[in-house]
Amino acid sequence: MTRIQIGSELVYDVRQETVFLFNIAASQTDQQHIEQEVLTFDPDVSVESCQVGLEGNRLHRAVVLPCQLTVRYQATAALQPTVEQPSGVTETVTSQMPPEVLVYLNPSRYCESDLLARFAFEEFGSMERGYQRVQAICDWVYDHLDYTPGSTNASTTAADVLLQRTGVCRDYAHLAITLCRGVGIPARYVSGYAVNLQPPDFHGFFEAFLDGAWYLFDPTQLARTTGLVRIGTGRDAADTAFCTLNGDAVLSQKSVWANPESPSEEPTDQDESSAVSTS
Amino acid sequence: MTRIQIGSELVYDVRQETVFLFNIAASQTDQQHIEQEVLTFDPDVSVESCQVGLEGNRLHRAVVLPCQLTVRYQATAALQPTVEQPSGVTETVTSQMPPEVLVYLNPSRYCESDLLARFAFEEFGSMERGYQRVQAICDWVYDHLDYTPGSTNASTTAADVLLQRTGVCRDYAHLAITLCRGVGIPARYVSGYAVNLQPPDFHGFFEAFLDGAWYLFDPTQLARTTGLVRIGTGRDAADTAFCTLNGDAVLSQKSVWANPESPSEEPTDQDESSAVSTS
Amino acid sequence: MTRIQIGSELVYDVRQETVFLFNIAASQTDQQHIEQEVLTFDPDVSVESCQVGLEGNRLHRAVVLPCQLTVRYQATAALQPTVEQPSGVTETVTSQMPPEVLVYLNPSRYCESDLLARFAFEEFGSMERGYQRVQAICDWVYDHLDYTPGSTNASTTAADVLLQRTGVCRDYAHLAITLCRGVGIPARYVSGYAVNLQPPDFHGFFEAFLDGAWYLFDPTQLARTTGLVRIGTGRDAADTAFCTLNGDAVLSQKSVWANPESPSEEPTDQDESSAVSTS
Amino acid sequence: MTRIQIGSELVYDVRQETVFLFNIAASQTDQQHIEQEVLTFDPDVSVESCQVGLEGNRLHRAVVLPCQLTVRYQATAALQPTVEQPSGVTETVTSQMPPEVLVYLNPSRYCESDLLARFAFEEFGSMERGYQRVQAICDWVYDHLDYTPGSTNASTTAADVLLQRTGVCRDYAHLAITLCRGVGIPARYVSGYAVNLQPPDFHGFFEAFLDGAWYLFDPTQLARTTGLVRIGTGRDAADTAFCTLNGDAVLSQKSVWANPESPSEEPTDQDESSAVSTS
Repeated sequence: MTRIQIGSELVYDVRQETVFLFNIAASQTDQQHIEQEVLTFDPDVSVESCQVGLEGNRLHRAVVLPCQLTVRYQATAALQPTVEQPSGVTETVTSQMPPEVLVYLNPSRYCESDLLARFAFEEFGSMERGYQRVQAICDWVYDHLDYTPGSTNASTTAADVLLQRTGVCRDYAHLAITLCRGVGIPARYVSGYAVNLQPPDFHGFFEAFLDGAWYLFDPTQLARTTGLVRIGTGRDAADTAFCTLNGDAVLSQKSVWANPESPSEEPTDQDESSAVSTS
Repeated sequence: MTRIQIGSELVYDVRQETVFLFNIAASQTDQQHIEQEVLTFDPDVSVESCQVGLEGNRLHRAVVLPCQLTVRYQATAALQPTVEQPSGVTETVTSQMPPEVLVYLNPSRYCESDLLARFAFEEFGSMERGYQRVQAICDWVYDHLDYTPGSTNASTTAADVLLQRTGVCRDYAHLAITLCRGVGIPARYVSGYAVNLQPPDFHGFFEAFLDGAWYLFDPTQLARTTGLVRIGTGRDAADTAFCTLNGDAVLSQKSVWANPESPSEEPTDQDESSAVSTS
Repeated sequence: MTRIQIGSELVYDVRQETVFLFNIAASQTDQQHIEQEVLTFDPDVSVESCQVGLEGNRLHRAVVLPCQLTVRYQATAALQPTVEQPSGVTETVTSQMPPEVLVYLNPSRYCESDLLARFAFEEFGSMERGYQRVQAICDWVYDHLDYTPGSTNASTTAADVLLQRTGVCRDYAHLAITLCRGVGIPARYVSGYAVNLQPPDFHGFFEAFLDGAWYLFDPTQLARTTGLVRIGTGRDAADTAFCTLNGDAVLSQKSVWANPESPSEEPTDQDESSAVSTS
Repeated sequence: MTRIQIGSELVYDVRQETVFLFNIAASQTDQQHIEQEVLTFDPDVSVESCQVGLEGNRLHRAVVLPCQLTVRYQATAALQPTVEQPSGVTETVTSQMPPEVLVYLNPSRYCESDLLARFAFEEFGSMERGYQRVQAICDWVYDHLDYTPGSTNASTTAADVLLQRTGVCRDYAHLAITLCRGVGIPARYVSGYAVNLQPPDFHGFFEAFLDGAWYLFDPTQLARTTGLVRIGTGRDAADTAFCTLNGDAVLSQKSVWANPESPSEEPTDQDESSAVSTS
C-alpha cells in the first residue's frame, strides 16, 4: 500500500452569485481509500456533497455570493493497486464484455473514435491483442506528439491533436482513448493527482478495459501509474472538469500537490512495464 | 393509456463471424410497459439480453456465423405519459438539479454545447425560463433547418447542422439538445418507434430536464410526443445506435412500424402544446 | 486627397538563417500613391522587392543570418478614394462580372462560403440588391460578434467564428467575406494601416465587388474606410500575412502607426454611410 | 508529341433562368496546343468565352432559359510535355522562388497546409530534397488512402481525408498538395481529361513547383502523367469546378472521354519514374 498526501487550493474572484460544482475530491474505490480528508470553503458556505455514478466520482456543490472564495482540499489516499505482468493481460473480446463497459467504446466529445477508426485500425489493427497493444498506442502518442503547454484549448479534440501533433496531458489521453476505442478496446478518461508531476497541476490520464478490469495508462510518461490518485472518471475531459461554474467567477490562483507520505513509500520501485489497475 | 404495436425487421448479409449488439427492444420504464414481446433470430442463435444504465436501455448481443440473418422484433407497448400544461412547467435551477442529471449538461460527440454556448445564450438566454423556452428552441430548429434526407451522415454534429441548415431527425435532435445544454438545461437523446412516422423508420427525438422530470420533444414535428415509444436513451445518437457490429455484415433490408392498437387509441386528441414526460 | 503617414517597426530574434517575406509596404494603385517611402533593415541585408498580382501587392524578401533584426518601414500615402452615395451602388449580376473577379466567389481557407451559403441565403438572400446588402452583412457581423482579442488563432475560420461568436478584425472580415460570397457577391480580404486604430496594429478589412468596382468595408467599425491604407489584397488572411518566414526567428517587438499628415486632413468628415472604393 | 481526342457531354435540366460558368475546355499553353475544338450548346445560346489568369484557364459563360440543355465539347489536344530524369530535378529554395509561385505555398479551402505542416514536416521534413520527395508524398498518399467513391463530398478537405483515410481523385490531390506546401514546396490543383481513366470522368491531379518548373503528379496512380490534358489550374478544386451555376438547374447526364489519336501514340512507353512538366 502507498499513502499519498494530496491537496489543492483554488481561489476565485466571485462577482455575482455563482453555483460551483467541484470535482477535486479523490474517489472512494475498492483500491483507493480516502483515510482522512478536509474540504474547507472560506468564507464558509453550505456545501452539498454528492457521489455520482458507479466509479465513485464525488462532487461538491455550493452557491456562493460575491466574495473572494478560497477552496482548500486535503486528504490522505491509501492506494492498493493491482500490479501485474503485462504479458499476462489479454484483451476482452466484444462478445464477453460486461454491458456497462460498452459505452466506453462509443465516440465522445473529445474522442471522435468514429472518425479515427480507420486510422487506428491501420496502425494498430493487426497487432497482437493485449496490454501491449494499448502500450503501443501510448508509445505512438508519446512519440508523435510534442508536449506543448498553450498549444491546445478547451475545445481541442483527438482529431485536432492527431493533425496538429501537439498538446498537453488531456490531449494525450484523448488521443490514446480514441485510438483504443477505434480498435475495439473500451477506454475512459481519468482526472487525478499525480506524484512528482512537474509543474504540479491536476493530471489527466486514462484507463483501458482489458482482461476483465480497467488498467491505468499515462501516455505523457510524466507520472507513474502507481502514483496516480483518481478524482473523476468519465468518457473524456468533458466529464471531469475540476470546476464547473454557473454565474460569474474567475479563478485567480491554483495550487495542486501530491506527495508520498514517507519518502520510502515513493513509488520508485515500479517496474516500468507493470500493468496497474485500481478499479 | 395508449397501446402501440411496434416492431422492426432487419436483414443482414453476414460475411464473417460477427458480434451484433442490437438496441431495438423498447425500454421498460414506469410509464412504458412492454406487455408482450417477441424477438426472433433466423437462423436461431444464442442471444444474450442485458439491461444497461438507469433508463432501461435493453441490448441484445449475439455472435453470428456467416449467413443471411433476419432479426424480427414485435411488441406491445402500453404508454402512460404524464401530460401537463406547459405553462406550469418551470426550469430546475442548477443548484437544485439531481446530481445524476448533471452529465446531460456536458458536451458530447454530436452535441458540442461548449462551442455553441454563446450562440445559445444570445438567442435564448434572455427568454423566460420554463418549458416554453425549450419549445422556443425546438421551433427555432424547425424553422431554420430543412429536413433533407441524405444531407448528413454518421459523423455530422450539431455545429455542422447549425452551419449547413439541413438534416434529418437525429440532426434536429442534436441541435436542440446542444442549444438546451448551452443555456443550462440538461438534455438527452432518445431513439424510438413513432406512430405515423412517414416514411416509417426508427426515430430520434430528445428529452429536456425541467421541473424535476424529463420532458419529451420532437423538433422535427414529424410525430406526436404521446405516440413515441422509447428504445434507447443516451447523451446523443452515439449511445443509441440500433445496431453496432463487430465483424463483417451488411444491412440489406429494414422495416420499422408503430401502430396504435385500435384506431380509437390513436393519439389524435393531444393538445398540440401539452408537456409530455415518460421517465 | 488625404495624406497619411504610415509605418511599422518589427524586431526579430533570428536564431538560424531565415528567409523572410514581408508584406508591410503599402500598395501602389491608381487611388493610393506612395509619395515617399523608406524601408530599412538593420543589420543591412540584401532585400529583393517584388510586385505580385494585379492588386499591387509588394513583397520584400531577404535571407538573414542569426542576429537581432530590426525592420522599419515609413511612408506617406496619398489617398484619393472614390466616395459615393450608397444608394446609387447596385450589385453586378453574375453574367456581367468581369472574369477576373470570379475567383473571389470561390471558398477559401478561412472563408468557407460553400458551407455557409445556405445560412447566408436565408439571412440575406431576399434583401434588396446593392451596397446596402453588404452593409447589412457588416452590421449583422458587428451585432453578433464580440470583439475579443485572444479568442481566436491563426487557424480560426469564418465557420468557427459564426459558431463561437467572438473574434478580432481578421475574423470579422472573414465572416463578412464568406457571407457576401454566399449570396453571390465577390469579396476579398485587405490588410492595411488604419488611422486611429486602437490599439495600433495592422488592420484587416475587406472589399466587395459592386457595380463594377471594389468597395471597402470594415465590419469591426474600428476605422473609417477613408482612412485605410492598403498593404495586401487576397482571398483571405492566408494571402496577406505581414511576415512569412522560413527558418527560425521570433518576433519580439512590433509597432504600427498611421497618422494623417495634418489634423485638418483627418477623415472626420466622412459621411458614416458613404460608399468608398480605392481600386 | 501526343495527340489526344478529348471531349465531354453534359445535359442539364434547367428549371429557371440560370447563369452557367463552364470550365471544360482544355487550356492553351506552350506545351498543350488545342488544334481543333468544337463547343456546342443545344438549344443554341449566346456563349461568352473568357481566358482567366496566367495558366490559360478558359471559361465559357452563358445565360440559359428553362430548357433541357446539352453542352458538348470536343477537341484535339497536342501535348509536348518535357520529360526528364527525376534524379536531376531538385527543389527550388524559398529565397529563389519566382514571386508568382509563392501563393501556392498558402493554405487554401481544401488544403489546410497550416494545420498539417507539423505532420508533413515529421513525415517528409528530413528527406532528401527534390522530385523524389514529392514522389514519396504521392506514394504515402496512395498507400494510406483507400480509393472509395462516395466516401467524401464537396466540402471534404485534406485534413478530413488524412483522418478518414478514404477519398477520390480530388481528395488524393488535395492531401498531396497540402503535404507539399507543408514542407515548403509550392503545389497547385489541376483538373483535366485523362487517357484510359476508369471509369471515365473528369480527373483531378496536381503540380508541384520544382527546379524552376511545374511538374505533374497523379497520386491516385489511375492515369499516366503524359496522358493528362489540362483544363483548369488553381489553388484547389474550389478553383476548377467543371460547372458553376447560379439559378436552378440539375445535371442529368455526363460523359467524358480522352483517347489517343492513334493507338501507337498511346503513352505506354512512359518510364514509370519520369518527371513530366507541361507548364
